[in-house]
Amino acid sequence: MTSWVKRSLKKAPVGGIGVPDWHIGGTDPSAAGAQGSSEAAGAACCAAKATLDGAASAKPATSPAVIIQRRPNMVPPCFLMGSSPHHHNAAGARQVPAVVASTERGSGVALTPTVRGEQMANTAPATIMRGEIAASIEVVQGLIADRARLEAIGVQLAERRPKVIVVAGRGTSDHAAIYGRYLLEHAVGVPVALAAASLVTQYGIETASPESVLIAFSQSGAGPDMIALVESARRRGALTIALTNEAASPLATAADATVYLAAGEERAVAATKTYIAELVCVALIAAAAARALGRDAAWANDLQQLPERMRGALAAADAWIAAARGSSQFAGMLAADRALVVGRGFEFPNALEFALKLRETTGAFGDGYSAADLLHGPIASAGAGVPAILLATDTATMESMEIARQRLAVAGSPTLTLRTSGGASDAASIRLPDGPAGPLSAPATAIAGLALIEAIATGRGRNPDAPAGLTKVTKTL
Amino acid sequence: MTSWVKRSLKKAPVGGIGVPDWHIGGTDPSAAGAQGSSEAAGAACCAAKATLDGAASAKPATSPAVIIQRRPNMVPPCFLMGSSPHHHNAAGARQVPAVVASTERGSGVALTPTVRGEQMANTAPATIMRGEIAASIEVVQGLIADRARLEAIGVQLAERRPKVIVVAGRGTSDHAAIYGRYLLEHAVGVPVALAAASLVTQYGIETASPESVLIAFSQSGAGPDMIALVESARRRGALTIALTNEAASPLATAADATVYLAAGEERAVAATKTYIAELVCVALIAAAAARALGRDAAWANDLQQLPERMRGALAAADAWIAAARGSSQFAGMLAADRALVVGRGFEFPNALEFALKLRETTGAFGDGYSAADLLHGPIASAGAGVPAILLATDTATMESMEIARQRLAVAGSPTLTLRTSGGASDAASIRLPDGPAGPLSAPATAIAGLALIEAIATGRGRNPDAPAGLTKVTKTL
Repeated sequence: MTSWVKRSLKKAPVGGIGVPDWHIGGTDPSAAGAQGSSEAAGAACCAAKATLDGAASAKPATSPAVIIQRRPNMVPPCFLMGSSPHHHNAAGARQVPAVVASTERGSGVALTPTVRGEQMANTAPATIMRGEIAASIEVVQGLIADRARLEAIGVQLAERRPKVIVVAGRGTSDHAAIYGRYLLEHAVGVPVALAAASLVTQYGIETASPESVLIAFSQSGAGPDMIALVESARRRGALTIALTNEAASPLATAADATVYLAAGEERAVAATKTYIAELVCVALIAAAAARALGRDAAWANDLQQLPERMRGALAAADAWIAAARGSSQFAGMLAADRALVVGRGFEFPNALEFALKLRETTGAFGDGYSAADLLHGPIASAGAGVPAILLATDTATMESMEIARQRLAVAGSPTLTLRTSGGASDAASIRLPDGPAGPLSAPATAIAGLALIEAIATGRGRNPDAPAGLTKVTKTL
Repeated sequence: MTSWVKRSLKKAPVGGIGVPDWHIGGTDPSAAGAQGSSEAAGAACCAAKATLDGAASAKPATSPAVIIQRRPNMVPPCFLMGSSPHHHNAAGARQVPAVVASTERGSGVALTPTVRGEQMANTAPATIMRGEIAASIEVVQGLIADRARLEAIGVQLAERRPKVIVVAGRGTSDHAAIYGRYLLEHAVGVPVALAAASLVTQYGIETASPESVLIAFSQSGAGPDMIALVESARRRGALTIALTNEAASPLATAADATVYLAAGEERAVAATKTYIAELVCVALIAAAAARALGRDAAWANDLQQLPERMRGALAAADAWIAAARGSSQFAGMLAADRALVVGRGFEFPNALEFALKLRETTGAFGDGYSAADLLHGPIASAGAGVPAILLATDTATMESMEIARQRLAVAGSPTLTLRTSGGASDAASIRLPDGPAGPLSAPATAIAGLALIEAIATGRGRNPDAPAGLTKVTKTL
């Protein structure tokens, strides 16, 4: 058990998400820049940026070596053949993952093979995934500038006066669809269902009607199941909308209306900028629909600030990562083969997506739960070797998230909380920039969480651009 | 890599779920009874029973010792203080878990602690969980005998002519609700949505209407979130139905109509008989609603055979477990800290539920996926140390399941398939009794899968009746 875990157990009844009282206990001197929880909340964003620069300049020439024990049944890491994983942060400072290279195999049955950390030469470019995470800020700027075309689709949806909206997606797009499931029910005021695609594709059971709207999410627009759902719904008179990054794709052709993500080509297998683009497109559509129906859309008032908020969130994540590298805390996250991600409400889709990204890029089992569902069984699998990432950006769900955090701490899981209240980042939390709670927190949380997971992947010696057994476009029925 | 895994890789393109070609390679002499894949499909149920009896009588006096490697970060097993886990199968023969007791800790850093298998004295009763799994057959018999009261609620639902049905539950009841999500959409012909409870309880967003029906699932009837959903929906004019095992619970009081599960007191924390009762109650309601609406209910024609089918499924699982104990295959399942469960359509809820039960009772991370969703990312976390349980009982989804099985085999995951076609059980599959494919497969698959998981839990030295950090009734908002 690490000292961090011991402290979590001891402090559990006292420490809260809003007012964290844990501090970095690692050995990296750059960690000092992120210490202290007494800064005023309003200054935290600037503080995080200062930490980022400070961490980069104070970084020692060589990162401390960290020994990660490999489990006997662990899939061998995909070592980066001929390239060295590192990347540039927003300030241009290089960040070198502490743990990467060679494998030593024990010869005895009971010996556990280990991966010993070594600093890699700084010769190769950043990962594609990391570049696309950062690029999502410009993508969102573009969507906001071009919002009229998205709002028109929101108005079209509202004019249909649907009795029910059905959303559908697979993988990452499924999680964006679940964000739509929450936000559209809020905006339009009717139940929203996540499609059970197999009813159509496997059993031939069709339930769409002129009183329903189907929104199908697919980055590629090539998923046969999504196309089948749209064709079924359109044939039965529903309004069908495709959200896709391929404007001329079969899905776009099949649907009545297309929401083009305009995210540019996504080269990494692990979708990041298209995920964030899907979230923001849904928000723009939902806000327009809410206004057309005379329903609450105040949550969308600060949309213009979203790119800046995302920039601050990415900087806060980078600063935390730079400070944490070499610490025992971060080593614990890198060593874990099992992790939990917990959100609630509008942050629940991010919890699912971060968990999926952990699976796709780090080889670890990541599992996303709502703070309520976690307590109905899955909490039994928490423990010292099972770190948990908590997404606590929403005042409405803060109590629920805090109950979950305390239960995780009691179970022994080290927790890392992404939060928008309280003081500066510390060992157990990343302070994201201020901004309105609710639906528009999600894209800012997304960019920070995805950057964190990319750092975990490279820190585990994985190439997140080449996930085991995955291809960019997956076709299922 | 075990020889089983090697064979899986080699045979992947050839072996199918329908016609398995893997055979037990373990050392337990009782395994012989389950070998051979040439039996006619129709005789497989009887063959499984014969195997059960044969396995029990041929069982050696002491089970072979099996060494299970514990991961350094594994939560210490809850050793059964003062009791010895074993249970009686349907034929009354004792089954002794091969792997239970003492822990030896290595002193060096690189040494992995091991749990060495020892036969336990046969002095204590079966686990409560196991008893309640078996008791579910009688519960289902009772529900079928008393079907008129359930069918009346199905007719009431149909008469409402809803535009949308919303189902809600937490934990195990969530998975029964998802079964309802599939089956009610089939039966009633309108979209069915899984409730996002936080919209009501955290954000105060209400969307129920007189054109909607809400069905809330709660074994205890005490969940504050389920009660809040019912109160909100009823206030807004929706028809509200409670499925609960407590007829006088607050949830039952709050709802317009109550579906009483009549499962008797459930003492184990891990819900099993109430889960199966929920599935069967939903099936009875859905069938009645379908008939009232003039829709297809042929799938419910063979309902009377369900208890016998469940009995056969439990016997098949017991026979497989008895044959597999002491084999390297079963040892691999016991050793795994991460497992996948894959289903599709009407078996998808079982995949989610088996995964939850793995978490609750074995300490392993179990994750349930649809065969399609698995390929959209999570397949990246498959591998040699990650066994997968596949639920392939449905002709409609067989191709989808077979694609998933092949992908898992290529990734190196050992697979165990629960199937209703092909020859007798073998090392890689359990042949469940014949019966109509579709909705009514689920309760039979459920009893077999839950028995398997109980055996994994006791085999890992866990007491499934006392899951870490869980209580019988969990209250969340």
